[in-house]
Amino acid sequence: MSHPLDTIFHPKSVAVVGASNAPEKYGYIILKNILDAGFPGAVYPVNPKATEILGRPCTRSVGELPPGVDLAVIIIPAKAVPQAVADCGQRGIQAAIIISGGFAESGEEGAALQRDVVEAARRFGVRVVGPNCQGVNNPHHSLCASWPLLTLPGDIAVISQSGTVGAALLDWASQEQLGCSAFVSMGNRSDVDETDLIDYFTQDPHTRAIAAYLEGVKDLARFREVVSRCPKPIVILKAGRTAEGRRAAESHTRSLAGRDELYTALFHQLRIHRADTLEDLYDAAKALAYLPRPRGRRILTITSSGGSGILATDWAEWSGLTIAPLPGPVADSLRGVLPAHCIIANPLDLTGDANAALYRQVVDATAPHCDYHIIIFGDPILQAADVPTPGSPQLVIFLGGADVERQERVRMHQKKVPVFPTPERGMRALARLYAFDGVGP
Amino acid sequence: MSHPLDTIFHPKSVAVVGASNAPEKYGYIILKNILDAGFPGAVYPVNPKATEILGRPCTRSVGELPPGVDLAVIIIPAKAVPQAVADCGQRGIQAAIIISGGFAESGEEGAALQRDVVEAARRFGVRVVGPNCQGVNNPHHSLCASWPLLTLPGDIAVISQSGTVGAALLDWASQEQLGCSAFVSMGNRSDVDETDLIDYFTQDPHTRAIAAYLEGVKDLARFREVVSRCPKPIVILKAGRTAEGRRAAESHTRSLAGRDELYTALFHQLRIHRADTLEDLYDAAKALAYLPRPRGRRILTITSSGGSGILATDWAEWSGLTIAPLPGPVADSLRGVLPAHCIIANPLDLTGDANAALYRQVVDATAPHCDYHIIIFGDPILQAADVPTPGSPQLVIFLGGADVERQERVRMHQKKVPVFPTPERGMRALARLYAFDGVGP
Repeated sequence: MSHPLDTIFHPKSVAVVGASNAPEKYGYIILKNILDAGFPGAVYPVNPKATEILGRPCTRSVGELPPGVDLAVIIIPAKAVPQAVADCGQRGIQAAIIISGGFAESGEEGAALQRDVVEAARRFGVRVVGPNCQGVNNPHHSLCASWPLLTLPGDIAVISQSGTVGAALLDWASQEQLGCSAFVSMGNRSDVDETDLIDYFTQDPHTRAIAAYLEGVKDLARFREVVSRCPKPIVILKAGRTAEGRRAAESHTRSLAGRDELYTALFHQLRIHRADTLEDLYDAAKALAYLPRPRGRRILTITSSGGSGILATDWAEWSGLTIAPLPGPVADSLRGVLPAHCIIANPLDLTGDANAALYRQVVDATAPHCDYHIIIFGDPILQAADVPTPGSPQLVIFLGGADVERQERVRMHQKKVPVFPTPERGMRALARLYAFDGVGP
Repeated sequence: MSHPLDTIFHPKSVAVVGASNAPEKYGYIILKNILDAGFPGAVYPVNPKATEILGRPCTRSVGELPPGVDLAVIIIPAKAVPQAVADCGQRGIQAAIIISGGFAESGEEGAALQRDVVEAARRFGVRVVGPNCQGVNNPHHSLCASWPLLTLPGDIAVISQSGTVGAALLDWASQEQLGCSAFVSMGNRSDVDETDLIDYFTQDPHTRAIAAYLEGVKDLARFREVVSRCPKPIVILKAGRTAEGRRAAESHTRSLAGRDELYTALFHQLRIHRADTLEDLYDAAKALAYLPRPRGRRILTITSSGGSGILATDWAEWSGLTIAPLPGPVADSLRGVLPAHCIIANPLDLTGDANAALYRQVVDATAPHCDYHIIIFGDPILQAADVPTPGSPQLVIFLGGADVERQERVRMHQKKVPVFPTPERGMRALARLYAFDGVGP
């Protein structure tokens, strides 16, 4: 273990301080998610009144925990948290995730409590995530100290200053079985902030792209330094961009949201991709984590849906991509093998009775003549997942395919081929790959 | 019956010409969908070789159909279609939906066949949808002469020049149980076009908004005339906006896509909402069909997710909406009843442990002080569907709620309260209500 945050992501054993038998409480939900995700180490519910929670014997207090526990998840009333953090430190616990709210976000009294938490953490050498957060999930270590329950390991690390915004991203990743490499809800960032996390994910072997929802950067100087040596793509949805939005951000997590132009300049300078919406954040991270970098700007669209091909073409042109013409001999040879009603051009329209074999044939025949294939499956195309080759410059879009689409999308995600839900979202995501790189003409 | 297209949407009985026993063929899929949707009249499979399809006795030819059939769905090879249309006309069938491809979209030979279809249709007084289309669905008459199978009646009419694009919209409407008032895939528009359909939906009592995907308007003069007397909101996604996109549109359905600036001017003049993406088309139609018109621009956001409230606030400001300040006495009285950690401002943040009762209380208390409520449910909020009042100026956004979110969304859609999936998509959709109307300050 070599990174200061290792304990947060790879603890040997976990204590849930404030574990509860009441199914509606987070002290129950988080303990259950830790157990249901199959955490490989020991799990200790801590509660002075219960003897057993979810079949696990309870420990009465942090002081009575056995030695060797290295992470505590704390879900107790705010007033008791500073002492709990001190107790953790004295028991040798090196990290705490504080779910409880009632700190800086709720007024002056809470802010004082938060200062007490930070002081206790510093004195006893405890790293703290939160307070007022939705926890940490590391599917690669089967640690779901958070909600919703997501156990599927993936390649995208999600950092969020909003629990719900993070949960929404995770719900999408869970629904379409893309998974994540880790999820951290930072809450009030009393200690661990986005810069610490980007530093961690820079060296995390499972993370291929970092997606963050931020209302403001906490420590600009460190952020600059850490981001400028992070070789992995970072995409950020920065909220609080307008005057009213900034005011709302300042009362949410006491972030100094800062003027939007400053962030625009900063992100550009640091080659951070800026997302415009939550879905854009998700799509951009998917593209940046899973799609290979382009060799050039020539795209070729292969579709069963003429309309979708046109939409993709509009967005390609708006993104500065080149619609590669099919060389005459290639078109001629395709004309010899494809059904007569296919439109052999770019987009190449296989029309509504296309099947996976036909796609495969056309992709193979045209690969030397473009830098990126745009493969659009319109309508239910059985075995569509057999068409793309993982790691190849191929953008897959699937729409109008109902249940077949949902099945084939999951199959492609299992092969690490990302699938986008509309031509526009696919093309916008693809354009991310061209944003900062000097790809050829 | 008073509209020329009534037979297409409300036939008494339907013949499926080219019905098939092979489950992968459209002649099977469409017949099955007509039967599965519970079409209330007689259904006649027509096939010279089969005796029975899907349990229904087959008729050998159109000429042998019993009298009184008024709609034919035609799925036979292109070459045989002109004669089939003539046979339909001679048998007294007044309308035909031609699914088959191989007409103008596939070259000169197909274009000639299409001219023959039009000529036969004119001679015998048959109205034609298609060819090269995905059919017609009217859930209010249990007529699903199309795919996918969607049986839920709703308030939005979908018109599409692309079958897949229409199917994608219908799949979303089906997934979130919003339904549609009707769906028409126009294909090559040899006869029935978008203008005929807008004219029909203008008088259709079930349609409250019209959503269309178009590559070009077929008859500009009639379009102007019909749209200018349509009192219902129309939103159009016009594809083929760039030079390359236009070229692709022209080879797809031989549409004259026309320069984009012309459409911008035309749509503005006719008060047609222009969608930028497929999802924007869907969201705008949802808002325009289901949300009441605003009295003014003052919005008040009530949320359990601070981050989502900030995102909504940014988009509200970009849309020219006013963040209504809470009057002091209202804030004070809320302070007396809400938990201490709630942030009583705009956005009003109930924080992560909010429940439906708390939302309801705050919505009621603040209704006199804003023109539109933005109600954001973040995380799983049980019974969220009990919060909004149908027909009230309330925009509902739900995210990060996983299965609870999906259940409550369906419950709200059953009450005709539309639910949007992210703050950005919700706010963009809401802004549609302000687009052409002179709402107050």
